[in-house]
Amino acid sequence: MPAKPPTLILNAFEMACAGHICHGLWSHPRDETHRFGELAYWEEVARTLEEGMFDGIFFADGLGVYDVYRGDYEIALREGIQVPRLDPMLIVPTMAHATRHLGFGITSSVTYEPPYLFARRMSTLDQLTGGRVGWNVVTGYLDSAAKGVGLGAQPGHDDRYDRADDYMDAVYGLWEGSWDDGAVRLDRAGRTYVDPARVRRVVHDGPFHRVDAPHLCAPTPQRTPVLYQAGASDRGRRFAARHAECVFVMGPNRAVVAGIVHDLRRAVEEEGRDPYAVRVLAGLNIVVGATDAEARDRLAEYRLHASPEAGLAHFSATVGIDFSAYALDEPIRYAPNEGGRSALEAFTRRGGGKVWTVRELLDAMPLGSRVHTFVGSPEAVADELQAWRSEANVDGLNLIRTVAPESFRDFARLVVPVLQERGLVGARRAEGTLQRKLFGEADVLPASHYGSRFRGDGGRGRPD
Amino acid sequence: MPAKPPTLILNAFEMACAGHICHGLWSHPRDETHRFGELAYWEEVARTLEEGMFDGIFFADGLGVYDVYRGDYEIALREGIQVPRLDPMLIVPTMAHATRHLGFGITSSVTYEPPYLFARRMSTLDQLTGGRVGWNVVTGYLDSAAKGVGLGAQPGHDDRYDRADDYMDAVYGLWEGSWDDGAVRLDRAGRTYVDPARVRRVVHDGPFHRVDAPHLCAPTPQRTPVLYQAGASDRGRRFAARHAECVFVMGPNRAVVAGIVHDLRRAVEEEGRDPYAVRVLAGLNIVVGATDAEARDRLAEYRLHASPEAGLAHFSATVGIDFSAYALDEPIRYAPNEGGRSALEAFTRRGGGKVWTVRELLDAMPLGSRVHTFVGSPEAVADELQAWRSEANVDGLNLIRTVAPESFRDFARLVVPVLQERGLVGARRAEGTLQRKLFGEADVLPASHYGSRFRGDGGRGRPD
Repeated sequence: MPAKPPTLILNAFEMACAGHICHGLWSHPRDETHRFGELAYWEEVARTLEEGMFDGIFFADGLGVYDVYRGDYEIALREGIQVPRLDPMLIVPTMAHATRHLGFGITSSVTYEPPYLFARRMSTLDQLTGGRVGWNVVTGYLDSAAKGVGLGAQPGHDDRYDRADDYMDAVYGLWEGSWDDGAVRLDRAGRTYVDPARVRRVVHDGPFHRVDAPHLCAPTPQRTPVLYQAGASDRGRRFAARHAECVFVMGPNRAVVAGIVHDLRRAVEEEGRDPYAVRVLAGLNIVVGATDAEARDRLAEYRLHASPEAGLAHFSATVGIDFSAYALDEPIRYAPNEGGRSALEAFTRRGGGKVWTVRELLDAMPLGSRVHTFVGSPEAVADELQAWRSEANVDGLNLIRTVAPESFRDFARLVVPVLQERGLVGARRAEGTLQRKLFGEADVLPASHYGSRFRGDGGRGRPD
Repeated sequence: MPAKPPTLILNAFEMACAGHICHGLWSHPRDETHRFGELAYWEEVARTLEEGMFDGIFFADGLGVYDVYRGDYEIALREGIQVPRLDPMLIVPTMAHATRHLGFGITSSVTYEPPYLFARRMSTLDQLTGGRVGWNVVTGYLDSAAKGVGLGAQPGHDDRYDRADDYMDAVYGLWEGSWDDGAVRLDRAGRTYVDPARVRRVVHDGPFHRVDAPHLCAPTPQRTPVLYQAGASDRGRRFAARHAECVFVMGPNRAVVAGIVHDLRRAVEEEGRDPYAVRVLAGLNIVVGATDAEARDRLAEYRLHASPEAGLAHFSATVGIDFSAYALDEPIRYAPNEGGRSALEAFTRRGGGKVWTVRELLDAMPLGSRVHTFVGSPEAVADELQAWRSEANVDGLNLIRTVAPESFRDFARLVVPVLQERGLVGARRAEGTLQRKLFGEADVLPASHYGSRFRGDGGRGRPD
């Protein structure tokens, strides 16, 4: 059974765009994120992370543009708030080819694409990367994305998760149930490339999705990619408890995140799984310098280029409240959308439940982001990470970028050696798939995971 | 205006699987196509083609499995007939990163994915490859693919093309109309990443597809990828006449193909375009040796590993007739499906309209493929290509692989120098996008192309 990992999982948080979480920093003279359309840029990032002993890189993604703040997307364009944005899937193969160990988490929504197509895309990535991909399952929440694909608005929040559960059953059938191990024979003399007796048609019949076909891909190193989830609502947590193997959490401080992690691990246990069968990674902004003073100087310099208003516009879209409708010192009488309630509550909980004003929100976003920012020397950062590990019970870090790729390089150069001295980062890498690297057990989903029920003809894939 | 190109366009025909067109050759001891899941393999292929002065590589793709022959897909699995198969899009970035000039044609269907998602995928590829992608527009024809995505059967043939026309209008709006040139300012001092005044929402309202959003990607080097089409039906030709910039043709001999090309160029002209605004590439099997005798020996050796029956199973799926239902010498009273009629007629026309038997079909597929196979010395191959150019009025070659990548290497090593001596292949490469390389005009769609009407606010993208 998985135990709490002895070392910290180090993950870099990315998106195929300029402004990701810390908004406005694209305007910093050393920031290179506008190069997100160059494969050479991503190759450099991949090598920096691999040499820096990072375990993985995780790409956020989404389809819409942020148009809640002021009711349009003008500031989203002007400040490059996750737009323009490319499809991250197409960047991953080049990063994988330049590395040997780095894992790749990819966000993709279950709302817009048939499971049969998506299953092949992920199998292709798993094959090409030698079993190093993860999938962050999201349901989509922006009406602007729904409009892009021809719908008037998103389906309701809980309905989206019901659809997502159904989607998962369909792709598990394709990944786990359609092809047995050893189906690919490549027997030249016997003229048998694939043994037909070891391939079966997957028949999945609703309630929302249908499949009636064999998977197009032979078994890949992991079959099912490592499953990530970040949903913070009650329904999202139930979904994560069943499916997720890694969960990203973000919050204003350790105490708030500790509560989130506690609830999550309990939900995982209620699902019949080991509470450490889910690795929890905390999203953090970190500004490091050789000394505390240097780190503070660096923060001050970064702040000159950040845009708290852009952070506010992003936050408006997340929670579904147009903060521009408030006067600066007017209390926010918020009625956030369903997915956003938990985000807003987690954020404002650090104020002890008090009602915030927009001015206070802006003040809390010095780097254009609502996420907690820690500033300090390498030793102070290592202390902080240890504290997050012990007090918030997280397994690792999802490092948000500030000025990039400088912030990844700084972390790798300054903090990782300290973590290694303390035994929190190993000296060597484990071999095998991302699944094996994270849990040390097998290259594929463990038998205790719900998805493994779809293996062979035990699942809904009926022998053909 | 485009003229007939002075040199031959050399294109390699590929698919992300083992058995593509010449079936059974996966069992040849030197065949390496089972390595299609390795990025290193595709990098080697890309370098071979780039060094061999190829202009492009074109990936076929599809979603279904071939299950018409005998009513199941047993032989498709046993002989690896285009299965297992990966998503070719994810292979292209690595091949592009390893080359500088090679173009990439990618087949993708307009039937399964919303235009808004697909437009971003292609823009991402165009950006990452520096403007070297093409899109082969297909509508899908296999009921087995429809079942995979949860439909009972494919929509009717002409209806699919009506949907495809609508899909094209939606993606033209996103690619050509949503972002003006110069929209990305990256003005750090002025805090303007994107000028909002130069981005507009695309509003496309049916009849089949809807979009109401700005494109997620800034303008890429080509904006619209070079458009390929291979439909051979009347409705397919009308579609190609409007949209296509490259068309693939396959046929049993030059005379048959000459007729197809004549009809196509006339249809292009009727659409108000220059007949040479469409580059036509002939799909050919070529087996070359240092001498005619060596080439014949090589063919004989390849034939030992080919599977004409697998070729017949593939052909069954193409035309929608189960050839296994016929006795070997029984005349085929065919009633092919709509898309397949032209394929069968083109094939059987070389028999002067006579009714074929299955035995005769098998005899006509020595390399497990119905496509014309030419065998000879480098000079003989060059003569043959010149004859195709002058008699069938094609602009280049879509080289089908036999034993691979050996057959690409052989062509590059033996035939290309002869073509260069004859001035049919240049000594140097043109710079610029694939669009510019093919037509020598601009990096983007010419003003004479239908898609250019969607530029700026002249198309259906309404200013926001």
